[in-house]
Amino acid sequence: MGSIPGVSLFLLGVTLSLLPSPVQGGKILVFPVDGSHWVNMNLLIQSLHAKGHEVTVVRTATSWYVKEEAPHYSSITVTLPEAVCIEEQDFYVAFLVKILEIKKQGASLMAFIKFYWEMIGSLSKIHQQASLLGVEIFENKTLMSKIRDSNFDLVLMDPGLPVGVIVAHKLKLPVVFNIRWITSGEGHFVVAPSPTSYVPTSGNAISDKMTFFERVKNTFHYFLNTCIDKFIVCPPYDRMVEKYLGPDVNFYQLLQGVDLWLMRVDFVFEFPRPTMPNIVYIGGFQCKPAEALPSELEEFVESSGEHGFILMSLGTLVNGLPIEITSEIAAAFAQLPQKVVWRHAGERPNNVGNNTLLVKWMPQNDLLGHPKIKAFVAHGGANGIYESMYHGVPIIGIPLLFDQFENILRMEVRGAAKMVDVTKVTQQNFLKVLQEVLNNPSYRNNMKHLSALHRDRPMHPLDAAVYWIEFVMRHKGAAHLRTESYKMPWYVYHSVDVISFLLVILFMLTACVVAVIRFTWLRMCRRRKPKQE
Amino acid sequence: MGSIPGVSLFLLGVTLSLLPSPVQGGKILVFPVDGSHWVNMNLLIQSLHAKGHEVTVVRTATSWYVKEEAPHYSSITVTLPEAVCIEEQDFYVAFLVKILEIKKQGASLMAFIKFYWEMIGSLSKIHQQASLLGVEIFENKTLMSKIRDSNFDLVLMDPGLPVGVIVAHKLKLPVVFNIRWITSGEGHFVVAPSPTSYVPTSGNAISDKMTFFERVKNTFHYFLNTCIDKFIVCPPYDRMVEKYLGPDVNFYQLLQGVDLWLMRVDFVFEFPRPTMPNIVYIGGFQCKPAEALPSELEEFVESSGEHGFILMSLGTLVNGLPIEITSEIAAAFAQLPQKVVWRHAGERPNNVGNNTLLVKWMPQNDLLGHPKIKAFVAHGGANGIYESMYHGVPIIGIPLLFDQFENILRMEVRGAAKMVDVTKVTQQNFLKVLQEVLNNPSYRNNMKHLSALHRDRPMHPLDAAVYWIEFVMRHKGAAHLRTESYKMPWYVYHSVDVISFLLVILFMLTACVVAVIRFTWLRMCRRRKPKQE
Repeated sequence: MGSIPGVSLFLLGVTLSLLPSPVQGGKILVFPVDGSHWVNMNLLIQSLHAKGHEVTVVRTATSWYVKEEAPHYSSITVTLPEAVCIEEQDFYVAFLVKILEIKKQGASLMAFIKFYWEMIGSLSKIHQQASLLGVEIFENKTLMSKIRDSNFDLVLMDPGLPVGVIVAHKLKLPVVFNIRWITSGEGHFVVAPSPTSYVPTSGNAISDKMTFFERVKNTFHYFLNTCIDKFIVCPPYDRMVEKYLGPDVNFYQLLQGVDLWLMRVDFVFEFPRPTMPNIVYIGGFQCKPAEALPSELEEFVESSGEHGFILMSLGTLVNGLPIEITSEIAAAFAQLPQKVVWRHAGERPNNVGNNTLLVKWMPQNDLLGHPKIKAFVAHGGANGIYESMYHGVPIIGIPLLFDQFENILRMEVRGAAKMVDVTKVTQQNFLKVLQEVLNNPSYRNNMKHLSALHRDRPMHPLDAAVYWIEFVMRHKGAAHLRTESYKMPWYVYHSVDVISFLLVILFMLTACVVAVIRFTWLRMCRRRKPKQE
Repeated sequence: MGSIPGVSLFLLGVTLSLLPSPVQGGKILVFPVDGSHWVNMNLLIQSLHAKGHEVTVVRTATSWYVKEEAPHYSSITVTLPEAVCIEEQDFYVAFLVKILEIKKQGASLMAFIKFYWEMIGSLSKIHQQASLLGVEIFENKTLMSKIRDSNFDLVLMDPGLPVGVIVAHKLKLPVVFNIRWITSGEGHFVVAPSPTSYVPTSGNAISDKMTFFERVKNTFHYFLNTCIDKFIVCPPYDRMVEKYLGPDVNFYQLLQGVDLWLMRVDFVFEFPRPTMPNIVYIGGFQCKPAEALPSELEEFVESSGEHGFILMSLGTLVNGLPIEITSEIAAAFAQLPQKVVWRHAGERPNNVGNNTLLVKWMPQNDLLGHPKIKAFVAHGGANGIYESMYHGVPIIGIPLLFDQFENILRMEVRGAAKMVDVTKVTQQNFLKVLQEVLNNPSYRNNMKHLSALHRDRPMHPLDAAVYWIEFVMRHKGAAHLRTESYKMPWYVYHSVDVISFLLVILFMLTACVVAVIRFTWLRMCRRRKPKQE
């Protein structure tokens, strides 16, 4: 066998040319999730398109971010019944307002129950709508045969919208996940064993060094997440699977049995935890060096002089905070010697300082990579954190929803961020936090250290993502990287039957030994008795 | 922050230059294991030397394969007391003869006990000697200060000789393992959770698809291996650790807490199983394209015509089989139309066919990569299997010792090899196996498929090994990739305390509820009674 053509990474004497010729013209069907998830998926699609693959994206007619037309993909648009449509942007803002109200009441059992009630209600709505997208596809015979006739090579999907695995199973296509977390539990719980003694459950802002009561809380959350998965998230999909794939197929096993997981995680950010051979870590795959700023913005940040400037953005999901909070933030900013660039929507506070520039949109990556930047005031979405980490900029975190609390915590534990409770923000305490992060060099140094570790990788994560997607297309799957675990019933997986069997054997052996001893003892006693008599 | 200089693997528009400048002139202290393990380690050392690092190898004066002088490393030679020295080659041959005798008696409880008795005896001797090497280093003050003054950056070691971690801890140096398995249990059992329901234990030739009784056997082997680790392997090192590092340090935690594991494993060969972020898989890192054969050998294999030729080698550990076995093998070979190249030592059978060439040494990789090769008769050492897989050559396996049975099984399960029981080899049954592998194309096709998967990697595993060793030197460790798991007592790790606590709470709640119900019931009864009266 000759060597396979390709490039070699290092110039070692013994190095081989290993890269196989690229897959040309693969056909990929994409099931994305809207909002910030789409930002990630879109980037990956652009790269796949640039490598010569043909990408088709499935979207709803009312989609928020996923456009019907784009130069790098074609789309399949599914129109859902109006009654079930969620107006996503309004939906999340309304959700945030409710959550903030509950949080303001302080920590109590009632608040906890209210919080979960709201969360479960929202999750239920989101997955009802998502499953209906699947139903529309399966019921629309014309669409289904169009998809079948397209002869796709692969389904690439965000399992936040898991109907993709059901369609893929029907079409017998390999599946690759582009994933940050899955349904209500994090991806790892579905594939790799994750002891609750040091792996924090999703939705639980604790570190991997837990006290006894944190471990109790973590175990409790694990059960809670499992129940939410089982009773809230899965049922609509379970019904779909039974109807369209038959009673022998299990929805959860479809999720667990996909070929490859591209996890948007890097262990410089995430706490280290068990993993699986078919998980490829692509955390920070969107990161790239800064480009020049638009001249107006460049002038503004350059005018900050030696003090530099601060960036503030709360991401794509929620574009506005209540005015009573933004007023406090604006007042704190006004007292800084730094300049501030604030991505702001909604009502403008009337106390914005001269040093503060409010913008509707900004080139976030280019600002984060600017030499004059001093800190990033962020909501803690994973994308923003990776960009900030890539550029070595310390974070003041104002987490609002979902994984944002956990994300900021991970940076805080490493001394590269400071968290602010949005329900308790005042001009004074916010200013104090800003000053601490700006004036104590440890935050910046720690973030620079994380940046050095994060950048030191043999292959850029975006290249890795494309490589492994093409790998799955080349070999029509990646079954050899998938463990047997997900095919087993829980009692087999956890060896409950084996341990019970061994205990029964042990019990029987003990019983036999005891019986023999007793029998011998009784015989000895009987022999002695006549003598005594 | 500017971009870091380096090379980019793919030519995507968005690709960044990520590779940091190479570490020049690192100083690496190596604790190798002799025999076939050294073949691997030596290759890695050559690459490290080629990248400009200074390597020092620790060896015993009586070392079998590790030479005192080499162009690519310097050495520290430790002379052990003559009484404890094992003459390794003779030692393993004697061990094999005993094991073969036991196996010939057939499967029985007595044979099992005898086998483990022999194995435990040998393991105990090997580790007694290995720990004495450590004692000699710690007791020799001149040597110890010479090592300390050398200012090493890293300890690279095969944990088969685990004194390296003890020396590294003393010198506060980061540690990288070059590992296939560790002590008596396989590496994974020490670091990643490995459910016995689908992860075969080391020393147990079963696949990842187990029947109930195979799972019972696997669980039993797991306990056996754990006991061997605890009571046979560790005690000499435990004593060393207590004497030289103090009572607060735990030897097993030193093993588990190393910075990085370079595992000589690829999941095309190994069954997929849970892994950890600080494990880098370098299976097949020694593989490379074939070079031209010496003219005499080339002439011989070319003369095989369309039938091609077969290769036979039993590796570096054992160079000879009993004559009654080799005679049967020679007779079977003589009946084939193929030519045979046989790496042979010891007594020459008198029935060697005209088609068979016996050689003392051969360029194995170049022969495996020759276009005329048809099959490889091998003992099943991991190195040979990876080379065979790399070149797509099906295997007839004659496993003799240690992991060789498991290795051949992994290829057999994938339809790329056929196993022969060495204690039952006859001319007839051996010929039958040879003919099946030669004439049924599925073996070759399956091996070609494995070869394609194995070669399809974004980076050559030898490059990956060097990259990650340099990574650990650049960042003085890789603590961010190491989980918290190994620092916990077993009952914390397995949440035994948390589960007990929750059960107690549940019990108390149930007791309260029962008490309230009982109290109410009694009161109701008491109220009713007077009425009835």
